[in-house]
Amino acid sequence: MAELSAPGRSDRQGFSETCAGIVGEANVLTDPAALSVYGTDWTGQYTATPLAVARPGSTSEVAALVRACADAGVAIVPQGGRTGLCGGGVPLAGQASLVLSMGRMNRVRTVDEAARTMTVEAGVILESAQDAAEQHGLTFPLTFGAKGSCMIGGALSTNAGGMNVLRYGTARELCVGIEAVLPDGSIVNALTGLRKDNTGYDIKDLLIGAEGTLGIITAAVFKLYPQPRARTTAFLSIASLAQAHTVLNRLQDQTGGAVEVFEFMPRPAVDVICRTFPNIRHPLSRPAETGLLIEVATSRADDAEGLPDGSLRLNGQVLDLLAELMEDGVVLDAMVAQSEQQRTDLWHLRESILEAITANGPAYHTDISLPLARIAEFVTAMDDLSAELGFQPLTVGHLGDGNLHYALTAAQGRRWNDLPLDTMRQSLFDNLMALGGSFSAEHGIGQSKLDVMRARKEPAQLAAMRAIKRALDPKGVMNPGKLLPTD
Amino acid sequence: MAELSAPGRSDRQGFSETCAGIVGEANVLTDPAALSVYGTDWTGQYTATPLAVARPGSTSEVAALVRACADAGVAIVPQGGRTGLCGGGVPLAGQASLVLSMGRMNRVRTVDEAARTMTVEAGVILESAQDAAEQHGLTFPLTFGAKGSCMIGGALSTNAGGMNVLRYGTARELCVGIEAVLPDGSIVNALTGLRKDNTGYDIKDLLIGAEGTLGIITAAVFKLYPQPRARTTAFLSIASLAQAHTVLNRLQDQTGGAVEVFEFMPRPAVDVICRTFPNIRHPLSRPAETGLLIEVATSRADDAEGLPDGSLRLNGQVLDLLAELMEDGVVLDAMVAQSEQQRTDLWHLRESILEAITANGPAYHTDISLPLARIAEFVTAMDDLSAELGFQPLTVGHLGDGNLHYALTAAQGRRWNDLPLDTMRQSLFDNLMALGGSFSAEHGIGQSKLDVMRARKEPAQLAAMRAIKRALDPKGVMNPGKLLPTD
Repeated sequence: MAELSAPGRSDRQGFSETCAGIVGEANVLTDPAALSVYGTDWTGQYTATPLAVARPGSTSEVAALVRACADAGVAIVPQGGRTGLCGGGVPLAGQASLVLSMGRMNRVRTVDEAARTMTVEAGVILESAQDAAEQHGLTFPLTFGAKGSCMIGGALSTNAGGMNVLRYGTARELCVGIEAVLPDGSIVNALTGLRKDNTGYDIKDLLIGAEGTLGIITAAVFKLYPQPRARTTAFLSIASLAQAHTVLNRLQDQTGGAVEVFEFMPRPAVDVICRTFPNIRHPLSRPAETGLLIEVATSRADDAEGLPDGSLRLNGQVLDLLAELMEDGVVLDAMVAQSEQQRTDLWHLRESILEAITANGPAYHTDISLPLARIAEFVTAMDDLSAELGFQPLTVGHLGDGNLHYALTAAQGRRWNDLPLDTMRQSLFDNLMALGGSFSAEHGIGQSKLDVMRARKEPAQLAAMRAIKRALDPKGVMNPGKLLPTD
Repeated sequence: MAELSAPGRSDRQGFSETCAGIVGEANVLTDPAALSVYGTDWTGQYTATPLAVARPGSTSEVAALVRACADAGVAIVPQGGRTGLCGGGVPLAGQASLVLSMGRMNRVRTVDEAARTMTVEAGVILESAQDAAEQHGLTFPLTFGAKGSCMIGGALSTNAGGMNVLRYGTARELCVGIEAVLPDGSIVNALTGLRKDNTGYDIKDLLIGAEGTLGIITAAVFKLYPQPRARTTAFLSIASLAQAHTVLNRLQDQTGGAVEVFEFMPRPAVDVICRTFPNIRHPLSRPAETGLLIEVATSRADDAEGLPDGSLRLNGQVLDLLAELMEDGVVLDAMVAQSEQQRTDLWHLRESILEAITANGPAYHTDISLPLARIAEFVTAMDDLSAELGFQPLTVGHLGDGNLHYALTAAQGRRWNDLPLDTMRQSLFDNLMALGGSFSAEHGIGQSKLDVMRARKEPAQLAAMRAIKRALDPKGVMNPGKLLPTD
């Protein structure tokens, strides 16, 4: 792979002028303040100064910039809303790089009500895409915390997940077509939105989740769904984590697969939230050791009809099942939201967790996934080890997808800096891999997990990835130093 | 790419002995009768004699065979049930090849009721996989005509579709993990079945649909679904094909996304079926010009409950909607199956089409897809041109997926051999591509569509595919001459 190194001053100016010739002078930023902003992401942990920032306004401008970078030996760092958690969207120190900020490519090109698809450019903010669908009476279900500032291109490049992957799938599964610029500057135009297309290798899914290392996604077609007419939200206390899949499967059967949210809310996490935010309380009078936040939703008109007692039919479906599960000893207690306020309160609880953990002191965050049937075993082993080593785990997770955000904090009375984090981390990943888990469920690799990737990813797959990278990007210009650890 | 050519007699014997050393003598076939069977597929159109047939019994045997072939410069042709329609699973004439018949790797390794997944080997017959899921009270929804003899490995390698892709997705979308042998003999073991795993490039989806040109899938994990408790099947006559998406979308909304089948059954196709099979009749007393076969199904217990008039609640949902759609002039007439016999009759009609077309004389078959909103435009244009040039189109299709099997036959009184098929075919593909369609929706490329692939696939994607092929299979041993046209 070609070496990319910092050019001299005159090279730098020449390169900026080349970029200005493509996107116009106003769309090339070189002042130190701008370079600092675009050189840093949301976490603040990853920061470096690029040669310049270019803001292309079209796919052909992206292609021209890619060719210019290849010619000049300058690394290309595609960038969306800088909300990534792994440092995948910012430049590397010591590397001559161009940040390719996609924010000007922010058009919703079409919303096709008949086909229930939407074509959006990479720089569209996720929430704007959701709004566009809503204006057409449809739902774009991809959603997560950063929705107000993250961009579609970044969501695809990290194959973002979030709250309702369980029902609608990840960014990859929602995407039925892309437009992209490959490292040689050629343009892939596959925006037809076809549900069936077996004409060769799956280039779309290869680019999704590649974190900009194989090309730049410039636009995409997404599936849209009908807006729910009825929704039921509840907080459950269940007898043990090992019975979570029983609850999930029976709830799916009872509602015809309408479970949108199935979140793990164990007591330590809810305790911390309640301590941090005095206006938030445990949803059940007897706090749940193993809590679940669930939500089911359907577009069926009959689910939104009232039952004789005035409640929703869908609520009735859920209540019937909860009664059965209580009879069986699986569910200990439950609270079904009976008003929009109660629903908002439950969501407020869920959405306060990260802030509460952060306010609580230093923490080590993870983004892991496990086979559903192995989660209880994993959590029990890690909770035991944590207690032994002086950690207090604060866990939440998209349990329906097997995705845990298992965070380690210092146990009461322990100082973070005294704790054996490396030992804990090693055991955590050993245990995770032994149970068939993944060390990155929905955040990606970026810079932050390159060491885990090197140590834990199956060698055969790593070798295949490197071969693909070399084949599509022989000059190594596309977001080098991200996702793939060096040989 | 290395040249693969026919070796001499002694080489051949030496190579067979090497294979026998790996899989045992009983599992290497070299007699002419066997070579003829394994050298021909279901269509009978593609036939060639391999050097030998090897029947591996394990993944490590597959890996050893791959290495042996690479060493000997012998092409590897992975083979399932030989039910492919494009010649992707049989050897090429003039090429020294080993057929790698996967039929001995036919274990259902596990059915995980908690996670609702199933791990099966590549040689499992599709129907056996369906049966295994059913024995655990679950459904494996992948299904199509060849289910009684096609194998899982072939279904994945062609990313097979079928009847209920609309609801459950193609083979790729149902698959959540694979085990595979890469062209260098290394083994990818990614059978964890994780719903979220963002640790690098999507190797799974790259191998699925690659028709054995990038490696050999030896096992896979599939999602399973609850068995339906209620099912409603109906035949509709609608006012025009252009209104099909209105019917589909309103039916989805009304049933909460429970539409499993949405098949296009236009009058010419149904007429031919009725002429060919005198025991089959038009389902409606006034034959539908634009007919639709629909089926909705849910696992909801309340959908299987009786309404006061004794009918199913789910039927009631569908009937309510049909009444509205008739009021709106979208649906002209409808027949909702009221008994298992009526349902069977409707399915018998749908499943008789291919046999009826075949009995009707020579035909040119297609497997195309279009954006839903463009299908009516395409069909109208092609029907007009067909009439002009002397063809009678006999079309059926998985309309919900935008997938048509638009078959051309000779119009009454016209001789097939006199018709300008090349002109018709050229116009059909021109029109298809102009409307954003695909020339292979669910059957793949194999040998039969290499010319269309060369002429119609976007050059940027074709170049990327070739680069990936060269990178992963530098010796060109994996099913050469399939899927990718030569440079």
